Amino acid sequence: MTDTPSAAPVLNALGQAVQPALSRIPSGIGALADYARQARHHIEAHAWAHIESGCDQAQALAHNRQALDRIRLLPEPLPDLSQAHTHLQLLGQAFDWPVLLAPVAYHRLAHPEGEIASVRAAMAMRTGMVVSTLSSYTLEEIAQAANAASQELGRTAPLWFQLYSQPDRQHTLSLVRRAEAAGYQALVWTVDANIKRSGYPLPPGVEAVNLRGMPQPQQTGDLMDDHILFGTPLATGAPRWSDLEWLRTHTHLPLIVKGILSPRAARQAAALGADAIVVSNHGGRVLDAAVSPIDVLADVRQAVGPQLPLLLDSGIRQGTDVLKALALGANAVLIGRPQLHSLAVAGTLGTAHMLYLLRSELELAMAQTGCAQLRQIGADLLWQPR
Amino acid sequence: MTDTPSAAPVLNALGQAVQPALSRIPSGIGALADYARQARHHIEAHAWAHIESGCDQAQALAHNRQALDRIRLLPEPLPDLSQAHTHLQLLGQAFDWPVLLAPVAYHRLAHPEGEIASVRAAMAMRTGMVVSTLSSYTLEEIAQAANAASQELGRTAPLWFQLYSQPDRQHTLSLVRRAEAAGYQALVWTVDANIKRSGYPLPPGVEAVNLRGMPQPQQTGDLMDDHILFGTPLATGAPRWSDLEWLRTHTHLPLIVKGILSPRAARQAAALGADAIVVSNHGGRVLDAAVSPIDVLADVRQAVGPQLPLLLDSGIRQGTDVLKALALGANAVLIGRPQLHSLAVAGTLGTAHMLYLLRSELELAMAQTGCAQLRQIGADLLWQPR
Amino acid sequence: MTDTPSAAPVLNALGQAVQPALSRIPSGIGALADYARQARHHIEAHAWAHIESGCDQAQALAHNRQALDRIRLLPEPLPDLSQAHTHLQLLGQAFDWPVLLAPVAYHRLAHPEGEIASVRAAMAMRTGMVVSTLSSYTLEEIAQAANAASQELGRTAPLWFQLYSQPDRQHTLSLVRRAEAAGYQALVWTVDANIKRSGYPLPPGVEAVNLRGMPQPQQTGDLMDDHILFGTPLATGAPRWSDLEWLRTHTHLPLIVKGILSPRAARQAAALGADAIVVSNHGGRVLDAAVSPIDVLADVRQAVGPQLPLLLDSGIRQGTDVLKALALGANAVLIGRPQLHSLAVAGTLGTAHMLYLLRSELELAMAQTGCAQLRQIGADLLWQPR
Amino acid sequence: MTDTPSAAPVLNALGQAVQPALSRIPSGIGALADYARQARHHIEAHAWAHIESGCDQAQALAHNRQALDRIRLLPEPLPDLSQAHTHLQLLGQAFDWPVLLAPVAYHRLAHPEGEIASVRAAMAMRTGMVVSTLSSYTLEEIAQAANAASQELGRTAPLWFQLYSQPDRQHTLSLVRRAEAAGYQALVWTVDANIKRSGYPLPPGVEAVNLRGMPQPQQTGDLMDDHILFGTPLATGAPRWSDLEWLRTHTHLPLIVKGILSPRAARQAAALGADAIVVSNHGGRVLDAAVSPIDVLADVRQAVGPQLPLLLDSGIRQGTDVLKALALGANAVLIGRPQLHSLAVAGTLGTAHMLYLLRSELELAMAQTGCAQLRQIGADLLWQPR
Repeated sequence: MTDTPSAAPVLNALGQAVQPALSRIPSGIGALADYARQARHHIEAHAWAHIESGCDQAQALAHNRQALDRIRLLPEPLPDLSQAHTHLQLLGQAFDWPVLLAPVAYHRLAHPEGEIASVRAAMAMRTGMVVSTLSSYTLEEIAQAANAASQELGRTAPLWFQLYSQPDRQHTLSLVRRAEAAGYQALVWTVDANIKRSGYPLPPGVEAVNLRGMPQPQQTGDLMDDHILFGTPLATGAPRWSDLEWLRTHTHLPLIVKGILSPRAARQAAALGADAIVVSNHGGRVLDAAVSPIDVLADVRQAVGPQLPLLLDSGIRQGTDVLKALALGANAVLIGRPQLHSLAVAGTLGTAHMLYLLRSELELAMAQTGCAQLRQIGADLLWQPR
Repeated sequence: MTDTPSAAPVLNALGQAVQPALSRIPSGIGALADYARQARHHIEAHAWAHIESGCDQAQALAHNRQALDRIRLLPEPLPDLSQAHTHLQLLGQAFDWPVLLAPVAYHRLAHPEGEIASVRAAMAMRTGMVVSTLSSYTLEEIAQAANAASQELGRTAPLWFQLYSQPDRQHTLSLVRRAEAAGYQALVWTVDANIKRSGYPLPPGVEAVNLRGMPQPQQTGDLMDDHILFGTPLATGAPRWSDLEWLRTHTHLPLIVKGILSPRAARQAAALGADAIVVSNHGGRVLDAAVSPIDVLADVRQAVGPQLPLLLDSGIRQGTDVLKALALGANAVLIGRPQLHSLAVAGTLGTAHMLYLLRSELELAMAQTGCAQLRQIGADLLWQPR
Repeated sequence: MTDTPSAAPVLNALGQAVQPALSRIPSGIGALADYARQARHHIEAHAWAHIESGCDQAQALAHNRQALDRIRLLPEPLPDLSQAHTHLQLLGQAFDWPVLLAPVAYHRLAHPEGEIASVRAAMAMRTGMVVSTLSSYTLEEIAQAANAASQELGRTAPLWFQLYSQPDRQHTLSLVRRAEAAGYQALVWTVDANIKRSGYPLPPGVEAVNLRGMPQPQQTGDLMDDHILFGTPLATGAPRWSDLEWLRTHTHLPLIVKGILSPRAARQAAALGADAIVVSNHGGRVLDAAVSPIDVLADVRQAVGPQLPLLLDSGIRQGTDVLKALALGANAVLIGRPQLHSLAVAGTLGTAHMLYLLRSELELAMAQTGCAQLRQIGADLLWQPR
Repeated sequence: MTDTPSAAPVLNALGQAVQPALSRIPSGIGALADYARQARHHIEAHAWAHIESGCDQAQALAHNRQALDRIRLLPEPLPDLSQAHTHLQLLGQAFDWPVLLAPVAYHRLAHPEGEIASVRAAMAMRTGMVVSTLSSYTLEEIAQAANAASQELGRTAPLWFQLYSQPDRQHTLSLVRRAEAAGYQALVWTVDANIKRSGYPLPPGVEAVNLRGMPQPQQTGDLMDDHILFGTPLATGAPRWSDLEWLRTHTHLPLIVKGILSPRAARQAAALGADAIVVSNHGGRVLDAAVSPIDVLADVRQAVGPQLPLLLDSGIRQGTDVLKALALGANAVLIGRPQLHSLAVAGTLGTAHMLYLLRSELELAMAQTGCAQLRQIGADLLWQPR
């Protein structure tokens, strides 16, 4: 018996029967954009719409790409690449290259092996991964799969846990303790999506397994309610800056605050003990008018000074995007939706190949701009009209 | 016998038979834009074209959205929302939230119950409404329906009357006196559409019922006339600033001037006794090259100082738009066409739901930008490129 | 026997048989853009392509509209329109309104009555007209038709003649003398299209009748020629500034130089005796990268000072365009292609109606921006981002 | 027996059988863009995709055109063209006009006569040509065809050789010696494409014939390789600035460095002995985020001073583009893809005609902007918004 009780065929957004994931890379896949196109055939229609959607009119989603595309690079030819590499240290941890898998909910929407397949690909490609609170396998199962893959392949990378505060602090704390126990090396506390509407009902077999037994407040949707959002537990119980202070005192793991866009909030997070910040607009899924991370990154870097590690996500799709983010002040970037695209197309193999492509592109972009190491990537690569 | 004598089926803009309004919210409606899409099926083709049109080449209509979309917001995470609310006082009147139904002509073009259905939705959602001179039910009928709904539901909101000056001042005065007698709480004098061309013939059963017996001058359209517009009663009899002085002396109701875009005109209106101003380009229906209200709002606010209430309409379609207008100096906003969309789809229920969606979006946008009350909404929310 | 010997049906650009001009205004015509859409059905495919074309990739054509559309106006409500009018004096001549029919070649491409029909419409609507050297009726026939129409209708307007310099100065002079003899009231010397490629073969019955017996140099198109353009009579014999001096000494008519875009050239023309200048890029038909007239108009005005009359063409399609040009320094504007559109649709009646629509729009735009006379139209109407 | 063993029909990108090149110019070809449209019918689908492609998401390709299109020109009427010409001296060599055929790989993808046909067209139209290291006829065959054509036609133009550094310096040197021996008059050393991915497998009969016996390093594409690009011979063996010093000492031919975009690199190239520079982003084929050459040209000119010859390619498609590049500081320009378009359509005749069109356009553009010689083309032709 399967998780999907219905006998009706499952259709993709094109009205075709959903194709199962392949065991090889299909021809014509040479970039992350190709995975995005191909993935549509491998994902059920509603899940596809949910994955690809931005909030409201999807303007933030579009702006994220436009803001990156607007930036032009100034190549520098003929560099000495004899010692070229992409290694970096972040929070005392060694990364082979400055890209991580962003926390993305419910990988099983894309592939039955979900986060298990993703984390194997991450370890194979020596790529850091941030596991979501809303994972569709338990955080312990994912950590175990990461360890197994690392030992099998002789390759590893840091594994972090993304944390959503729960209405009951004890529930939040239990997630922290479980992550510590499972060996996660940092906590990524997401602050930009505590209050959001979601109209997407999860399909059978996909669930926030980490949150079993932890109730989540919801809007009733009743027009005649006295309160809509303000005045309800969703608003009155939403996390505040004081929760960061509390969290800081309750774990020794590095603590990263994710979902910052304003310089003011960045300074506040640093002042309250954040070890790093992820500049992000949640992939355009939360506030449709939100500024794009790449557009505020330099301001945030200026606000927090040169030492605090900054990561960026929301819109990264190619190697030049990574370079642009680093040139504007990021230490590393995270990629979101592309994980699900490659996972849906070819499982672990797909995501490993997707990361291979992205890294190839990054190294090519560094070579073209005369950068043999990450520290050479600076604002002088960026072209500004006179 | 009905108002529509023809036996031929009534078609919508897609060439389908017009669907009657529903008694439920159809699936897939999660935003005002969804109502706009759905409404096309429920409105007769010529009425639809009239409702959706902008003047000339519809550039002002498009600019209104583009100007709003260009503005980006800078989220502030982790606010204290324990006391969050959207209440405000305007002209001494209490509003539950800073959105009003704009004066829109002829609601019966969208639904047989017209303004009666709209005003019931407004009261149900505690939303102010401005009734148009060109309503398709009489201003007295609409006021009576508002009272009945308020008593039935235990919910209410201010009701204002929009006034067009008539060629004969006695006719203008009679409208004022009727509005006062019916209990309207303010007059909104529209100054930007006194002279316009209209090629739209009203269908049977839809009429400017408030204006029965009040003649309206028209262009003859005869190519060989000695005068086209200048030199005809349309121009020589058009209202002037002196009419504002006259009007001010003839009513004790708060007097709001609607259709101001220039700082100079805003100062003039205030000097002559206007209690508030609506910054508006009439939804892009009057002058196709007119600047968008959101683009001049900050200048108008600067011109009139911090005290004079400013409202804005023309293009508001989502919660973030409301936030942007307030951040740039408005006290409240009005929505126009969306009223007719929701009314056509599901009558009172539709418009109530449309307002629920918009208010949800506004509260979410405030939460995302760290604003627990309206007074916290300021220009620091707006992102400007460095 | 007709001018068109072929028995094959004549097709329009849609592959339909060309419709003859109508004797009434078809429904749905409310703006110049509507005439443009409708005209396609009434003009033979190759002629249509020629009329509508811009040079090369038609970028100048598109830029002309974009440059006008970018400009936004700031309405001023409630003006006193009791004395409103659009009259002006230009070169000592009285114009009812600040729009002229631009010199457009070969009106017979659009309608068998060609310039005869156009000039009748111009007189009927008290609109100045500039007759092209490349008219398809002789300049004498057109002047005669203008006089007849003026006497018949009791309405008139100035008639000017547009002059192309001929390779032989005696030919140029004979055109001048003929124009003077026929009663034309000014000469418009076009300087921007002396050298251009044209691949359009005129259809039977359409001809540059004014130029009979005056040879025109052509490119041979032979790849193995020693010279392409430079070194051929097209270049070596092209008119120069000295031709303006010569022309100035050979006529007492007001002399207007058409096709100026640079401030330097404008000053030069004025210094050599030009009585007025037409700022124009020839409707985007000559140099595809040429700047749009509206974008340089203010600079040209500044260069020549406040007294020299400036006219503008290239892209004027609606009343607000006229207002924008006047606000930036023009005294009047000319319209080109719209003449042929309305002429093709309904002959004299069509063009008269087209002018009626444009003047209605201009008066409405003036009313909306608070201008009762042309002299009130200034740069303060233009909105500029802060 | 032919080079193409398959019996299956060869299809173009439209799914039609590929049309052979014509022996005449088809009707409707009046610009380079027309050749681009027509060429699609004459080139096999994969070759077409390869020729037309940009790297990654083809943004640089699009930006190249957008950057050129954004620039507007300010016409100057009535120039004295009696002595007009387009001649120039470059590196002591005489050019009839400032356009060269850029080095483009594998002309046989477009036409069986490949570079032989192209060089004949170049000589016929007195147009310089840069032969690619990756030519599909040997550099000796092409030089011989150039000589034959020059003698036959009594027309000639400089012939240069484009050089890619080989992993083994002796191979590089042998290419230099062969080019010298064959009579090439300059070396164009390309520095921007030493490291790039290519997924395009050459069809049978098309080969880098100049490189026979010279091994080329390739990425393995194996996901589990320890190195992707950095750490492999592709990176460790890539050419550096020291290779320019070495090359300078090994040839007396003028040495031009192609693929420079940054002012810093331009100064460096000049300091190490480059006789000229080609400002280029390789037609958008290497780094998708690379700035467009036209956008940096003025900066590069400023960096190297007024004497060093600068050429530009990437996006030149019409005469006004040539003018814009010269106005911003280039001495001449190169055209890439248009060569293959015209070659595919009509072989030597096609390319000769394409060059004729482009030169006609350039001379017209010069005439329109008042330039009788190239030295008159300056920044005052460019329009900048006030």
